Amino acid sequence: MRGWIKPKPMSHPVQALSEILSDDMAAMNATILNRMESQVPLVKDLAAYLIASGGKRIRPLLSLATTALYGGDMGRAQNLAACVEFIHTATLLHDDVVDESDERRGQKSANTVFGNQASVLVGDFLFSRSFQIMVEDGSLDVLRILSNASAIIAEGEVMQLTIQGQMDTSLDQYLQVVEAKTAALFSAACEIGPVIAGRTADGDSDGNKNGGNAMASYGMNLGIAFQIADDVLDYTAAHDKLGKTLGDDFREGKLTAPVIFALKNASPEEQKFWQRTLSDNTQNDGDLDQALEILKSHDAFTKAIDLAKTYGEKAHSDLDKAPDHAVKDHLAGLIDFSITRSH
Amino acid sequence: MRGWIKPKPMSHPVQALSEILSDDMAAMNATILNRMESQVPLVKDLAAYLIASGGKRIRPLLSLATTALYGGDMGRAQNLAACVEFIHTATLLHDDVVDESDERRGQKSANTVFGNQASVLVGDFLFSRSFQIMVEDGSLDVLRILSNASAIIAEGEVMQLTIQGQMDTSLDQYLQVVEAKTAALFSAACEIGPVIAGRTADGDSDGNKNGGNAMASYGMNLGIAFQIADDVLDYTAAHDKLGKTLGDDFREGKLTAPVIFALKNASPEEQKFWQRTLSDNTQNDGDLDQALEILKSHDAFTKAIDLAKTYGEKAHSDLDKAPDHAVKDHLAGLIDFSITRSH
Repeated sequence: MRGWIKPKPMSHPVQALSEILSDDMAAMNATILNRMESQVPLVKDLAAYLIASGGKRIRPLLSLATTALYGGDMGRAQNLAACVEFIHTATLLHDDVVDESDERRGQKSANTVFGNQASVLVGDFLFSRSFQIMVEDGSLDVLRILSNASAIIAEGEVMQLTIQGQMDTSLDQYLQVVEAKTAALFSAACEIGPVIAGRTADGDSDGNKNGGNAMASYGMNLGIAFQIADDVLDYTAAHDKLGKTLGDDFREGKLTAPVIFALKNASPEEQKFWQRTLSDNTQNDGDLDQALEILKSHDAFTKAIDLAKTYGEKAHSDLDKAPDHAVKDHLAGLIDFSITRSH
Repeated sequence: MRGWIKPKPMSHPVQALSEILSDDMAAMNATILNRMESQVPLVKDLAAYLIASGGKRIRPLLSLATTALYGGDMGRAQNLAACVEFIHTATLLHDDVVDESDERRGQKSANTVFGNQASVLVGDFLFSRSFQIMVEDGSLDVLRILSNASAIIAEGEVMQLTIQGQMDTSLDQYLQVVEAKTAALFSAACEIGPVIAGRTADGDSDGNKNGGNAMASYGMNLGIAFQIADDVLDYTAAHDKLGKTLGDDFREGKLTAPVIFALKNASPEEQKFWQRTLSDNTQNDGDLDQALEILKSHDAFTKAIDLAKTYGEKAHSDLDKAPDHAVKDHLAGLIDFSITRSH
């Protein structure tokens, strides 16, 4: 096993996984840098701006980890993990245009620096490049999994746009958006691991150790837990920790889990407050603070985190079906970390 | 041969081809309608708005015609031609956001009606859907050809953005953009025909009748001729014929073939005029008329059309390598039509 380092019990699971898979992460990062090359300098500059700005590379890390877990070819996993990161980067570029975001990962967003036009087009480029790399790899199963995820992400983003500012957004609708816009790519990133190892979702069954569906399900549940916690963080995080502007969802009129919980037993005055700020888009100084007060008084953050935990438990059950391997404990740790980071 | 109708000698080649391939065109249109379905109503509405608005469907028609020419499976061609049209539609949606266009195909552009946000995301959806359909078809060659084309289109659009308003844009740079943003998809649309018929670009040679490269080259040269003529039309067309706003390129500061020819022997005053209007973005009433006068005085439209004709001749030579078939004459007619429509 390459780069194996015995994990410290309380270490950060993303760091721990990145250390165990450090050779693969380094090779994947090299592939990313190599494959975002373009004869058009602006393409590379813009891609590099966002990709070099860091991010935790959780999604490609999941592809590497699940491939290792099922004993797949790590060379292929490095290339395909880069595809996952390219698709994620493309959606971030387009998201920031759609949301008119000013900040991403603690620095100015790409659309602010390079303009919306270039952000749209370089997103398209990274998306296409990702499919070129998948075609080189040659697995139609991987192409199917990632093209399905891409279509679902786009649909989820449109759905999010459609329900923006809608006071009657249900928890189910919210979860549908979360599944599509975030969890679908987590799921796909995890599903390709066993596929690289030759285990398709349907075939090659070996009792409860068969990979495809279990890992797809693990990724889906992890992704949902992760996004719910992220939506709590959007209200509660310290600015330097979040790497994006606090209260973005509030300003954009997004009805996320905490607000939906607070709306359940809202007083008429509180209902008016949410209507004005999220639906009528009339926000004044101090509104975000008031929103925080209301959310806390309804235990909305606790309720949201409890919801995230139910998905976390499902993710743990999925992981029980996977074979034993050094990365397995860290994949379990990742579930808990995704949820508890919001405390 | 299904739907065979003997072509009238002087008929419109796009119509004539569409008639010969009418069953296939109908099946392809049904696939388009069927596959742009989404559980998110806005996705379907926006896609339908642009797709139903017509357009000549030249690109998918090329895929159907080249498949028929080489005797490939027309059922597969129908699905893959729909992919070509989805990719084209996705690029149109993103183009209109990038160019801030108000009109497309003689009606309000999708971004004007549905907003930039939805246009970006539905473009992403159609692009992903196209890859899903290709994966269902299962040909890695087709996936390679169309993912390559998609990456090249995005790079070409970024390059066009980069050189916008640059007075020293060379004819070579202009042609590079034209190849990438337009001709690459024409080329890919034509190349997949022989591939569907089992003739890859490299293998299965049968003398000068082998398809892949000849059709890729035909599509490339046809696409370049088509775009140069389109850039002439942007100045010279009657508004109702063009289906977009006259003088769009002028207003957007795009240095297209006519302007590049006019700049070659421009007087100092004319140079100042182009600098002010295209580079400094200071346009007044009457400037478009003056631009037309200057372009005519330099024979710039004739020179551009002559350039288009050189590519048209190359496309004819490419077509000579193809087997004899009812569609072949119409593919030849399409070359001449692409160029002469601008007169």
